[in-house]
Amino acid sequence: MIVFLNGKLVPEEQAVVSVFDRGFLYGDGLFETMRVVSGKPFRWSQHLERLERGAEFLKIPLPVPPPALRDFAAQLISKNRMPDALLRLTLSRGVAPRGYSPRGARQPTVVMSLNPAQAISPGTEPRWRLVTSSFLLPANEPLAQFKTCNKLPQILARAEADDAKADEALLLNTDGQVAEGASSNLFWIKDGAVCTPPLASGILPGVTRAVVLEISRDWGLTVRESGITRTELYETDGIFLSLSSVGIAEGASLDGRALSSSPLTARIGKAYARRLESSAE
Amino acid sequence: MIVFLNGKLVPEEQAVVSVFDRGFLYGDGLFETMRVVSGKPFRWSQHLERLERGAEFLKIPLPVPPPALRDFAAQLISKNRMPDALLRLTLSRGVAPRGYSPRGARQPTVVMSLNPAQAISPGTEPRWRLVTSSFLLPANEPLAQFKTCNKLPQILARAEADDAKADEALLLNTDGQVAEGASSNLFWIKDGAVCTPPLASGILPGVTRAVVLEISRDWGLTVRESGITRTELYETDGIFLSLSSVGIAEGASLDGRALSSSPLTARIGKAYARRLESSAE
Repeated sequence: MIVFLNGKLVPEEQAVVSVFDRGFLYGDGLFETMRVVSGKPFRWSQHLERLERGAEFLKIPLPVPPPALRDFAAQLISKNRMPDALLRLTLSRGVAPRGYSPRGARQPTVVMSLNPAQAISPGTEPRWRLVTSSFLLPANEPLAQFKTCNKLPQILARAEADDAKADEALLLNTDGQVAEGASSNLFWIKDGAVCTPPLASGILPGVTRAVVLEISRDWGLTVRESGITRTELYETDGIFLSLSSVGIAEGASLDGRALSSSPLTARIGKAYARRLESSAE
Repeated sequence: MIVFLNGKLVPEEQAVVSVFDRGFLYGDGLFETMRVVSGKPFRWSQHLERLERGAEFLKIPLPVPPPALRDFAAQLISKNRMPDALLRLTLSRGVAPRGYSPRGARQPTVVMSLNPAQAISPGTEPRWRLVTSSFLLPANEPLAQFKTCNKLPQILARAEADDAKADEALLLNTDGQVAEGASSNLFWIKDGAVCTPPLASGILPGVTRAVVLEISRDWGLTVRESGITRTELYETDGIFLSLSSVGIAEGASLDGRALSSSPLTARIGKAYARRLESSAE
C-alpha cells in the first residue's frame, strides 16, 4: 500500500508522523472520508470545501493546495490500483512547542490513504440494527459542523453498537433530540416527506446527506429539517442513514424494536447509487 | 532528546507512529503530564491511577505495566539528563481496521517524553490575565473525568487567550457555571474557605487540584466544592488556578476587570512548592 504524506507518495511502513504531531497529542486536526468510483473521488469539491471551512476555523493552513491534492489523489489511486476505494484525507496541525496553544506550529501534516470499499449499495442489502448510545452530543456545539479528529464520543457509541451486535449507534443531543449516527446522518420518512435533523442540532453536515436532500428536491418531495425524539422515530414510515462509505442504509430496528420500512428509502438508495456510478462517466 | 516508545528508548527522530494509529486518526487515547523534580515524577501514582481509570473506560489495555513504566521513566530522565522537567505519558489505541469501531485494535501505543520545566513557582510570580472562552464544556460529560487526547475545545480556548494576550482561558459549562481553565483547575477564596467546582460539573480531576485540597484540609481550612458563575468570580476574595506544569497561578484579571488577591493564595502556592521540593528527598 502506498500512502500520500506531506507531498510524497511513500510505502505504508514509511507513512509515519512524529509522536509530537498535535494530531497524535490532542486530536488537533480534521479529516474527510470519500468514496472513490472508477478512479474518481465522489463529490471531491464538497469534501474539500468542508475541510477548508474546518481548517479556517481551526486556523490550520492547508499546506498543499486543493488542485495539487487532487492530482496526488489520482496518483495514489493509480499507484495502488484501487479505482474503487475509500479515500481518507487527514490534515493535522503538525508539531509545535509544548502545550495546548497552537502558537508556533509551522508545518501542518497532510495524509491521504486508501481502503477497500464495499460494493456500491443498490439499496437492497440487509437493513441495519440500530441502538441508542448513552453518549450525548452537545447541542449548538460549533465544532460539530467540522469533521475533526476528536472522535471519542463516536468511537464509544460505536463500541456500544458492537457490544449490542448492532450495525450503528444513534446519538442524542443534550436537548434530548436524536442528532445523528456515530458515523452517519439520520433521515426519516413521514407522510411522504423526507426529514432530517437541522444542522443547528449539532450534527455533521454530511456530504451524502446533501446528496440525499438534492435527490429529494429534484423529485419534488417535501424536505423537512426538524428535530425528533427517540420515541417519535418508531412512529415514522421508516428511517435510514447516510454515510459516504456505504451510501444509504435502512434501519430495521432501534433498541430491539422494529421500525417501519418506506419504499421511498429503497428508491433514494437506488438514486444515490446511480449518482455514484454516473459520476464515474 | 531520547523518547520512550513502546518499550524502547529511541532518538527523537525515530519517535514516530503510523499515520494509521488511532491516536492520530481520531484522538483515540489518553495522556498525563507530570512534573519531574530531582529525577522523580511528582505524584506518579495519582497520575497513573487516572490514566488506568481512563484506559479501563476506553478499553485500551496498558501494554507496559506501571512499575515497568516507572523504571523506563527513570531511564528516560537519566539518559536525557533532565532531572527537572515535564514528563508526558501518552497511551493510544494503536492501529485497527478502518472505522470508528475499536474492534481489532491489538497493540496500543505508549510514549513518554520530556520537556524543560519552568522553575518551581514560589507563589510569587506575575499573576495571570484570564479571559472567558466562547467554547462551552458539556456538563455531566463522562469523558471529562479523563485526560483524553480529544482537546480541541481546550486548544481553541487557549488560542482565544493568546489572541487576547492573556495567560489562560476559563471555560464555562453548558449549565452556565465556570468549569475550569483550558489546562488548569479553578479555585477561589471566599470568607476564608477554599472553593472549587465539583467534579460533577464536568471537569478534569486534576492531580494538582487534589494536592491543593489536601493542603487546605491539612490546615483545617473550610473546603467547599460548589458551582460559580463568571460574575460571582469578581465577588470572591481571589482566584487561582492549579496545573501540574506550573503549580499555582493567581488570577490578576478576568476579561480585563481586576480580581481581588487573597494572601491565602500565596500561602497555598508556597505550600505546594514545598511539597514538590520535599518529594525529591
